[in-house]
Amino acid sequence: MPEPDAPALSGLRAVHLLKDLPEPVLAEVAAACRFRLYRARQGVISRDDLDRDCYFIVSGRVRVVALSPSGREVSFRDSGAGETIGEMAAIDGAPRSATVVALQDTLLARLSPDDLRRLLQRHWVITERMLGHLASIARRLTDRVYELSTLNVQQRLCAELLRLALADAAVHDRSADNRIVLRPAPSHSELAGRISSYREQVTRELAELGRAGLVGREDGALVIEDLSRLAERIEAVRTST
Amino acid sequence: MPEPDAPALSGLRAVHLLKDLPEPVLAEVAAACRFRLYRARQGVISRDDLDRDCYFIVSGRVRVVALSPSGREVSFRDSGAGETIGEMAAIDGAPRSATVVALQDTLLARLSPDDLRRLLQRHWVITERMLGHLASIARRLTDRVYELSTLNVQQRLCAELLRLALADAAVHDRSADNRIVLRPAPSHSELAGRISSYREQVTRELAELGRAGLVGREDGALVIEDLSRLAERIEAVRTST
Repeated sequence: MPEPDAPALSGLRAVHLLKDLPEPVLAEVAAACRFRLYRARQGVISRDDLDRDCYFIVSGRVRVVALSPSGREVSFRDSGAGETIGEMAAIDGAPRSATVVALQDTLLARLSPDDLRRLLQRHWVITERMLGHLASIARRLTDRVYELSTLNVQQRLCAELLRLALADAAVHDRSADNRIVLRPAPSHSELAGRISSYREQVTRELAELGRAGLVGREDGALVIEDLSRLAERIEAVRTST
Repeated sequence: MPEPDAPALSGLRAVHLLKDLPEPVLAEVAAACRFRLYRARQGVISRDDLDRDCYFIVSGRVRVVALSPSGREVSFRDSGAGETIGEMAAIDGAPRSATVVALQDTLLARLSPDDLRRLLQRHWVITERMLGHLASIARRLTDRVYELSTLNVQQRLCAELLRLALADAAVHDRSADNRIVLRPAPSHSELAGRISSYREQVTRELAELGRAGLVGREDGALVIEDLSRLAERIEAVRTST
C-alpha cells in the first residue's frame, strides 16, 4: 500500500464523515482514495457515469443538479469542504441520480463502493454519520417537494432566502436584530434553480420584496432587511394555500 | 424479557429489513417491539409527535403524507407489509418529517431509536438494508423534485401511471403486450396527491388521455391501454421542456 502524503491525510481529517477516526484508519482510507483536482465549472459526476464511487470534498465547492433535456437546471444542493457526494450510487449501485459540477477549483477524494462498504462495516461511528447524512438529504428533499406542492414562487423564494439566512455562511448585522447580509449575493438564476422557477420570475419577485422593504442590495450583497417579516410571509401564504 | 409470541415472530420475519436474521436475534427484536393494531384511517405518526420510534409494517398499508394548513394532502409514498416507516426521526432524532395514516387495518411493530441503533450496530446486514432504504427514499424524492420542476401536470400524471404500471401490484394483460390493468383503480384525489395537483385537474387529464386511447376504465380498474405510448408522452414533453 503506498504511503499517503500529509496533505491528503489532513484533507481527509476535515471530512465530516471521517472525523475523529484513529490515525491508522484515516491513513488506510487515504491510501484507498484517489485524489483529483477539478477546475471551476468542470463536471465531476454525470448521469451516464458507470462508476459508483463516493467522493469526499477536501476543498472547494460543488453543485448537485439535474438538467432537463432543454437545458433547464434543477439545483438540489451545494456542498463544500468536508461534505460527501455520490453516496447514493455508492450505496445502492443504481445509476447516478444527478449531475455534479465544480463551482470553483475543488479537490476531491474518491473512494470505491467496496472500500466504502468495508469502511462502514468496520466503523460504526462512520456508519451512523452516513445514516444521518442520508436522512438529512431525504428531509431536505421532503421539504422541497412539500414547498413545490403547496407554495407559489414568491413563497418558495422567501423560504429559500430564510434557509440561506439561517445557514452558517450568513452574516448577522450586529446593529439590527433581524438584518442578515448574504455575501456574495446569490445570483437570480441560482435562486431560480433552487426553487424550480425561472430567472426572470426571481428578478420580479425580488423586486417586489424590495418594494415591501423585506430585502435590499448592498454592494455585491443581498440584504434581508427583516427576517421575521420574511418568515411571516411564508406562513401567511401557507395558511392560505 | 417477556417471551414474544409466535404471530409476532412470524410477522417480523416478513419485514424486509429483518429478513434472514438468525432466529434468536429476531426473537430479541420481537421482544423489544411493541405491537399495535391501527384501524383504517387512524393516524399512526403526526408531525407533532415527540417519540422518535421506528415502525415495521407487519400487515396492512399506510400512507406517508404532509398536510398543508388548508388541508391539501401531499402524498409521499404508500408502504405495505414488510416495509419500514418513521426511520428518519429514529435515525437523526429530528422532528417527524411527515404524517402517516393507516389506509386499512394495519398491524405495526414499534421499535425505540435506542433499540434500533443497537440492532443496526450489531448486524451489518440490517444496516446495509437501512442504508439502501434511505437511498431509495432519497432517489424517489429526487425524481419527484425533478418532475415537479420540469414537467406539467399531464406529464407528471403519465409518469405516475407508468410507475404504478411497473409496480409489483400491476397486472399485465396476457393478451396484449402493452396493456396493464390497475385494480383497484387509484382514485383521482389519490393520484392528485402523488403528483401535487388537484383532483379536478387529474380528472380532466385522464379524460384527455382516454380520448387519446392511452387509458381506459374497466369495472373498478384503470387500464393502461398502451404503455409505450404513455412513456413516449412523458419523453416527448421532456425534450420540449
